[in-house]
Amino acid sequence: MSRNIKLTIAYDGTDYCGWQRQDNGKTIQGEIENALEKIHEKPVNLTGSGRTDAGVHAAGQIANFYTDIASIPADRFVFALNSLLPHDIRILDSCETENDFHARFSAKARTYRYQFIYRAGSALPYENRYNLRIYHFPKIDLLNAYGRLLLGETDCTIFTAAGDESKSKTRYIYKAYFYIEQGRLIFEICANAFLRNMVRSVVGTFLHYEEKNTSPAELQKIISSSERSLAGPTLPPNGLFLWKVDY
Amino acid sequence: MSRNIKLTIAYDGTDYCGWQRQDNGKTIQGEIENALEKIHEKPVNLTGSGRTDAGVHAAGQIANFYTDIASIPADRFVFALNSLLPHDIRILDSCETENDFHARFSAKARTYRYQFIYRAGSALPYENRYNLRIYHFPKIDLLNAYGRLLLGETDCTIFTAAGDESKSKTRYIYKAYFYIEQGRLIFEICANAFLRNMVRSVVGTFLHYEEKNTSPAELQKIISSSERSLAGPTLPPNGLFLWKVDY
Repeated sequence: MSRNIKLTIAYDGTDYCGWQRQDNGKTIQGEIENALEKIHEKPVNLTGSGRTDAGVHAAGQIANFYTDIASIPADRFVFALNSLLPHDIRILDSCETENDFHARFSAKARTYRYQFIYRAGSALPYENRYNLRIYHFPKIDLLNAYGRLLLGETDCTIFTAAGDESKSKTRYIYKAYFYIEQGRLIFEICANAFLRNMVRSVVGTFLHYEEKNTSPAELQKIISSSERSLAGPTLPPNGLFLWKVDY
Repeated sequence: MSRNIKLTIAYDGTDYCGWQRQDNGKTIQGEIENALEKIHEKPVNLTGSGRTDAGVHAAGQIANFYTDIASIPADRFVFALNSLLPHDIRILDSCETENDFHARFSAKARTYRYQFIYRAGSALPYENRYNLRIYHFPKIDLLNAYGRLLLGETDCTIFTAAGDESKSKTRYIYKAYFYIEQGRLIFEICANAFLRNMVRSVVGTFLHYEEKNTSPAELQKIISSSERSLAGPTLPPNGLFLWKVDY
């Protein structure tokens, strides 16, 4: 009788080619599947809630796998895996879940955070790893007016990366707002699902138009145009965290 | 006519064997001297304010070197060096200084910071790199009473590492206190100079005796005993930053 085990995972994505297993290149899924294979003495598939791109971090990625080892209590997989994993990947929690739980298809919403540090002088190496440095401090009220444009069912074509293969570009967005926390500017966005590079494109577009003082009404037209060339730059991955997944 | 150039340097020390150049192993001094050699097309000596140990970070390390290249304005060494250096070492400032300025011997005081994160659950990989995780939240008033014991001229023998070669173990300590900043517990210590591993031993000793509720009077006796075996553990380097150097 196999059990379905749900993992909560945090990682520093800097040195990885993203979540998804690859033949060439170190990935988060690959490292954890390698550790599971050592424990099970055979390959084990790990299903994540979604792929994070190269360099993106996670505070609460969720994944599940099936185990037929009856002798390991579900919560002990935390220790068994952490003892085999590199230190930039940590299992925060493991528990048994319903047999039909699927980390990707059962997920109702994902929350991402993008962290910024405002600094006029040179970048500091120990800030850059988890934050994007900005030179200009943005008008947060204007950014939050932009964020409100996204709420509800939104056609996100303008925020799509070239490689995105999703059929529908419409996503349901629950939250999209900026705030200050511990000296950082944080953008938090929660949606049922995300297109490839979407968060980095949304926040890059918002900062781009904020600097030009574009009104929310004008930005609404730009988003509705679905004209990708009007999107701002896709920001680098270092400031981005997959923050949590709701089921 | 050679000019004396003063550099202000920040680094993420995680992937380095410390400041001091070594034949085997990547060091901060080694990386910057290699960059200076490329610019000057000959070896250039770089003098630091002091050595930081393997894994220790810096927000404001100071160093100086002599250049005979007249065509580079002093402040342009920031760009010249940063374009050659790895991203975890950044030159924040460069300027011309008096000919007899010596980053080590001219220094009047050094300030170090040690950063802690309190978290009951699993460690988070992106916090661990620059903070030490603590499970027990300490009594800050008691720690600060310990800190006051160090102020002024203090025999620091108890905080000395086995490999320390300093003749005198007495240091003049200007500040030694704990405070909360942006969700972290910070220990800040400023002294004319430090013995090897001294900050990590001071803070390890303080936390060790705080947990036992040792009174400041008892800790004073322990420090005065110069009995190294009574010191607490030397904490790991990941939470430690050379914060600034005063001249």
